[in-house]
Amino acid sequence: MAQEILISEVGPRDGLQNLKRVVPLEVKKRWITGEAAAGVREIEVGSFVNYKALPQMADTAALVAHGRTMPGLTVAALVPNQRGAEAALEAGAHKISLPLSVSETHSVRNVKRTHVQMLDEVRAIRKTIDALPAERRPYFEVGLSTAFGCSIEGHVPVETLSRLAGAAIEAGAEEVGLSDTTGYADPGSIRTRLRAVRAVVGDQRLTGVHLHNTRGLGLANALAALDEGITTLDASLCGLGGCPAAPGASGNIVTEDLAFMLAAMGYETGIDIDRLLTLRDILQDAIPEEPLYGFLTDAGLPKGFAMHERAA
Amino acid sequence: MAQEILISEVGPRDGLQNLKRVVPLEVKKRWITGEAAAGVREIEVGSFVNYKALPQMADTAALVAHGRTMPGLTVAALVPNQRGAEAALEAGAHKISLPLSVSETHSVRNVKRTHVQMLDEVRAIRKTIDALPAERRPYFEVGLSTAFGCSIEGHVPVETLSRLAGAAIEAGAEEVGLSDTTGYADPGSIRTRLRAVRAVVGDQRLTGVHLHNTRGLGLANALAALDEGITTLDASLCGLGGCPAAPGASGNIVTEDLAFMLAAMGYETGIDIDRLLTLRDILQDAIPEEPLYGFLTDAGLPKGFAMHERAA
Repeated sequence: MAQEILISEVGPRDGLQNLKRVVPLEVKKRWITGEAAAGVREIEVGSFVNYKALPQMADTAALVAHGRTMPGLTVAALVPNQRGAEAALEAGAHKISLPLSVSETHSVRNVKRTHVQMLDEVRAIRKTIDALPAERRPYFEVGLSTAFGCSIEGHVPVETLSRLAGAAIEAGAEEVGLSDTTGYADPGSIRTRLRAVRAVVGDQRLTGVHLHNTRGLGLANALAALDEGITTLDASLCGLGGCPAAPGASGNIVTEDLAFMLAAMGYETGIDIDRLLTLRDILQDAIPEEPLYGFLTDAGLPKGFAMHERAA
Repeated sequence: MAQEILISEVGPRDGLQNLKRVVPLEVKKRWITGEAAAGVREIEVGSFVNYKALPQMADTAALVAHGRTMPGLTVAALVPNQRGAEAALEAGAHKISLPLSVSETHSVRNVKRTHVQMLDEVRAIRKTIDALPAERRPYFEVGLSTAFGCSIEGHVPVETLSRLAGAAIEAGAEEVGLSDTTGYADPGSIRTRLRAVRAVVGDQRLTGVHLHNTRGLGLANALAALDEGITTLDASLCGLGGCPAAPGASGNIVTEDLAFMLAAMGYETGIDIDRLLTLRDILQDAIPEEPLYGFLTDAGLPKGFAMHERAA
């Protein structure tokens, strides 16, 4: 049996949050439907933020509802605070993710809160979740943003990262993830920081990473993470992505190229790559002014490439 | 002490051989001078082929002579056969590389010779080299093209690869390299094929790989090769590259991005990345119609990135 790796599609959230043009709800629905049909098992459909500041995300509740109609799909949403979490619970998200930025400057700029204030949010969210009946409780993850460096603060000490990871788990997150918000990670820092954090929280509390391809190392970093036993990788169709509060942050790793790398290595992702590639048209039509990334779409699969043989 | 990794710049050969526009000798010289000044220690300056078929390479002897004026630079050249090798020796190349394609169809199309005929060339070249005085003998490598698959034949058996590698060493090559001519490699096949070939020829006879980024896995593949103990990586400024005889073959891994990945991981390459990035202008001016690849040039180095600290 091939090992399973979960590709979590974050394009509808991370890919769109930076764009000026608001993508219509119907287009986002088609995108999500298409990804689920191509075998993607988890999609972050949006974020429950202040919609006046980020109108792109105003339809997140509708997208959660839409995602919940896809059988087997885990519907994830980002929440910046307890109020956002309540909206996500109300909408029925299966998984919520709170960004806790290791760079406090970035945290304040991104979600207007310090580390101490964000840990208070974690505790409040935990309490809200625990008050729900068991079958309605979402999985609660804290995403440690700027875990590999910050384009405002520069170097981010590994000690701060590990301490915050431990504090987030203690405050009630089920899991922490490491996010390379700024594209500063390299395979070496992926290894050392995963090990440092896991030494504090344990392997089961850190199974996923969120990588950007800003400096072209995205898939090399993904490989380093896989070698460390990471089993969930965020990625974005066409590599869309960026963070409004982190200058210079650009595209996520490309879902299509990552799916190809994993299939070639014999991992099982459940994704039909040919089908996934057809979805690029949706974005090309909806946001023609945006650069779309990815190599596989031009190159195609290697001659004779058979996914089922590799996974066997 | 940081481990040294050799980046071998192949742009002037692999990057240009596919282009219609012939780049003037003076431009190539500026490029080579600039790379050497940026700390690149080995450059493949061209190939000794039939210049009527490939006029881009007609100035290779002049470029070898130019390269030899750069202190400490290893001047490499590709040769398709014994006749080319003689021209390379005459010109004074420090290193010659003969492509032996594991896909025999590709070999016949690329250099008009079967495996048996190419092994005869290896023996003839060895004899020619051994007839020289010791101080004039170049290092002789056989590059195993299509080592990870062929866009004409498709799958290329690992047994054929290992057998040819062993035969090339027996016929007189000092070393073999594995070339992913078509961009079919993945980190898994990098590992298994390096191990399979090294089991036949020994670790010291296989220290380098030549990777293309056709499907975006170039740096992930480079990482897998580094993990296997590979110490020489071919790359090309701006990722230029391709093979006239392999349909769909496209760009090499990008020298700038690779140099960044290695520096970030604490390897020593001798390369001044900021200086390297300034050389992109030479190509932008000389071949404005060609797509130039690479992420680092837009993103820049991470804030506070200090190469000397990492290598310490």
